[in-house]
Amino acid sequence: MSLDAVLARIDRDLPAALGRLAGFIAIPSISTDPASAMDVARCAEAFRDDLASIGFDATVRSTPGHPVVVAHRRKPGARHVLFYGHYDVQPVDPLSLWDGSPFVSHVVERDGRKVITGRGAADDKGQVMTFVEACRAMLAETGDLPFGVTILLEGEEEIGSKNLPAFVEANRDELAADIGLVCDTGMWDPETPAITSSLRGMVYQEIVVRAADRDLHSGLYGGAAQNPIHILSRLVAGLHDDNGRIQIPGFYEGVSDPSPEQLAGWKALGLTAKDFLGPIGLANSIGEKDRDIIEQIQSRPTCDINGIWGGFTGEGSKTVIPAEARAKISFRLVSQQSPERVKQGLAEFIKARIPADCAFELVDMKGSRAVELPYDSAPLQAARRALRDEWQRDVAIIGSGGSIPIVGDFKRVLGLDCILVGFGLEDDRIHSPNEKYDLTSFHKGTRSWARIIAELAKL
Amino acid sequence: MSLDAVLARIDRDLPAALGRLAGFIAIPSISTDPASAMDVARCAEAFRDDLASIGFDATVRSTPGHPVVVAHRRKPGARHVLFYGHYDVQPVDPLSLWDGSPFVSHVVERDGRKVITGRGAADDKGQVMTFVEACRAMLAETGDLPFGVTILLEGEEEIGSKNLPAFVEANRDELAADIGLVCDTGMWDPETPAITSSLRGMVYQEIVVRAADRDLHSGLYGGAAQNPIHILSRLVAGLHDDNGRIQIPGFYEGVSDPSPEQLAGWKALGLTAKDFLGPIGLANSIGEKDRDIIEQIQSRPTCDINGIWGGFTGEGSKTVIPAEARAKISFRLVSQQSPERVKQGLAEFIKARIPADCAFELVDMKGSRAVELPYDSAPLQAARRALRDEWQRDVAIIGSGGSIPIVGDFKRVLGLDCILVGFGLEDDRIHSPNEKYDLTSFHKGTRSWARIIAELAKL
Repeated sequence: MSLDAVLARIDRDLPAALGRLAGFIAIPSISTDPASAMDVARCAEAFRDDLASIGFDATVRSTPGHPVVVAHRRKPGARHVLFYGHYDVQPVDPLSLWDGSPFVSHVVERDGRKVITGRGAADDKGQVMTFVEACRAMLAETGDLPFGVTILLEGEEEIGSKNLPAFVEANRDELAADIGLVCDTGMWDPETPAITSSLRGMVYQEIVVRAADRDLHSGLYGGAAQNPIHILSRLVAGLHDDNGRIQIPGFYEGVSDPSPEQLAGWKALGLTAKDFLGPIGLANSIGEKDRDIIEQIQSRPTCDINGIWGGFTGEGSKTVIPAEARAKISFRLVSQQSPERVKQGLAEFIKARIPADCAFELVDMKGSRAVELPYDSAPLQAARRALRDEWQRDVAIIGSGGSIPIVGDFKRVLGLDCILVGFGLEDDRIHSPNEKYDLTSFHKGTRSWARIIAELAKL
Repeated sequence: MSLDAVLARIDRDLPAALGRLAGFIAIPSISTDPASAMDVARCAEAFRDDLASIGFDATVRSTPGHPVVVAHRRKPGARHVLFYGHYDVQPVDPLSLWDGSPFVSHVVERDGRKVITGRGAADDKGQVMTFVEACRAMLAETGDLPFGVTILLEGEEEIGSKNLPAFVEANRDELAADIGLVCDTGMWDPETPAITSSLRGMVYQEIVVRAADRDLHSGLYGGAAQNPIHILSRLVAGLHDDNGRIQIPGFYEGVSDPSPEQLAGWKALGLTAKDFLGPIGLANSIGEKDRDIIEQIQSRPTCDINGIWGGFTGEGSKTVIPAEARAKISFRLVSQQSPERVKQGLAEFIKARIPADCAFELVDMKGSRAVELPYDSAPLQAARRALRDEWQRDVAIIGSGGSIPIVGDFKRVLGLDCILVGFGLEDDRIHSPNEKYDLTSFHKGTRSWARIIAELAKL
């Protein structure tokens, strides 16, 4: 295989590749919105058709939720690789904050860089296509891939991958592989590639606080009746102490510190709170005061309210004390933290603080453990060499603040270790208005996968 | 004038009066909703037409906001009375919690009592019509009223009476009167009538807390970046101390205690927290621990969050840290508290607590001082006799937790003292789904006004 010829073809084919990506972004596959279910299905079919067109045996497989795309290219006797990504995207509200339509992708100049715009441009359609385009170029140039490849694309990553674990279990033989590749993570910075070797887990719950059995007029009942917004606010205010420590009983059970070597490697990256938070208009970290910023965002568990609502939220004024208030709360878990223990701790925390004549409810939305990947595995080191060749920089081996729960399931069910390589950047605005993916991420990301495939072929 | 004949006519005319009230309830005059502006105007016209039909010189007068209905019946040489009420209503959301349409009024049996259903059935269309129906019966029976009467109905009471003070100032000669009558308050209990002799004032603000300059992905920024929902929650949690005392700097400036006589009168009513809160499904008061429940709801200032929102509030889960969070906050003021001082105190309170790299904004929505009415005035004592005759019970002379800011303007601009008599009940669910007005409130309320008019005529 001539790697140079493959890379040259990737360069030549870039305009066409951008057109294909724009076609996928054009399909609003918002998995959390029931009204988008048809679009999610349509998006799965579009990926199936594209993968079939380059020689994969591609199918759309139904689940109790959104479908899964499974595409194989078998190579009997050779190593087999499972690539994972997702084709679903986050909601786009508030639409008014987007500069253009979230589903019409353009390449534009922004802050002096060329970027690909649109919901999913980075997370995860753009990232998935870096791998698919690398395969396309290699197949076009050499007629083959150096090992067997299965591409698995799910449609429920943004809503907690509810149905994927059961799908993997039910199809464990079909999905068996020697190595997992995942493209849903980021670079260290625009010049420095990264391999993610640990992933935080997640617990996501909805808290409902109920007080009176009806909405009340604050002129009549104010000053006497419990206000569920106040109760919920006190709960939220009590989640952290003044040092940023989370106050849920048992929360830190199972949390371990990174090894001295790992910590030393991180500190060498020299990240400051100002570096990390300055670009988003903030200055100071709110994390645990005795931890460096890099620990706070990579190896420490977190707790955030992702949404809160209650009472009158329309235009104008209404003097109501509502009957209930709600919040969505998420925890990022690390090391051996148990999602069940965290859920139980949250319930204990609220129970200890809820007034006697009020009530609460916890609606469980998802839970997954953290995953840590072996640092010195041969495939990881192969990927490291490939990335160094492409970017001409040493590679950051980091932990991820985000959660990709399926990586834990791959390990548990398929016995598979995954290499997480991605080309996202901190300013990609994933999950926010004006999501983008750098043209460089897309182009050099595709080239990187071609190099990684070539390096893995040598093992 | 034969009062008995007037009362008998009120009794006979009740079915027709209920039909007229249903006609007013049918007009969705929601003043806070820009989409309802035409309905608000239509409602003003309907009241004008009804008042003209019984012999008032009635007009609809435009303001920069919703119109005012002014109807005169002059009687040169005689005393003149100004009656105030409002024809606008609160929003009806959430519609799903109403048993029927909010704008189709029926008389139904509920909890063993006959009630008139619908938004505005009590607040304030039903209450206004008790006075109008009393005038109608008296005019029909006697051909006249014993003194001059002006009826002033506004369309912006539920949104803070923004334009009424200027309207009163601009028409001070036309609106000049010797006594004010207001029907927008409640009974003490279903058997005991009440005259309200003090009204709390109000400050209503919207708090905006801003952190990062965009929505963030909690997987990347959680544990490090400021979350405006947490900041707002801490602000709300800090508004009261453990004893229910409000922590805004200078908040209690100008707050005075009721006189020993007044306090003794209140205590004689024997209200307990259980009496007051039990019917709405609560048990314990959250008010200042060293104050009785009756003080908490009548003569003490309060602070309530009426709405809160931020982040993802839709179905499903989204791991976002939003750029901003908002709350609507209202204060009920008493005695000599200054709305300006309270607004300034709130700003100081937030400023002292907002993190250095975050920002806040306060949007001022309304402000009014508290009003206290002379306890021993002859008109008040006349009303007391009239109510005692109708209800065969001694009358409770109370303070109101609610705010009717215009009463302060009547005093300031017109030099007018107002007698506040109303027939609402605590379980009327005003501002909530399933608002109702007891048939007894409406019927005996109308009879009460006939008696009050007759008593006032004797002064």
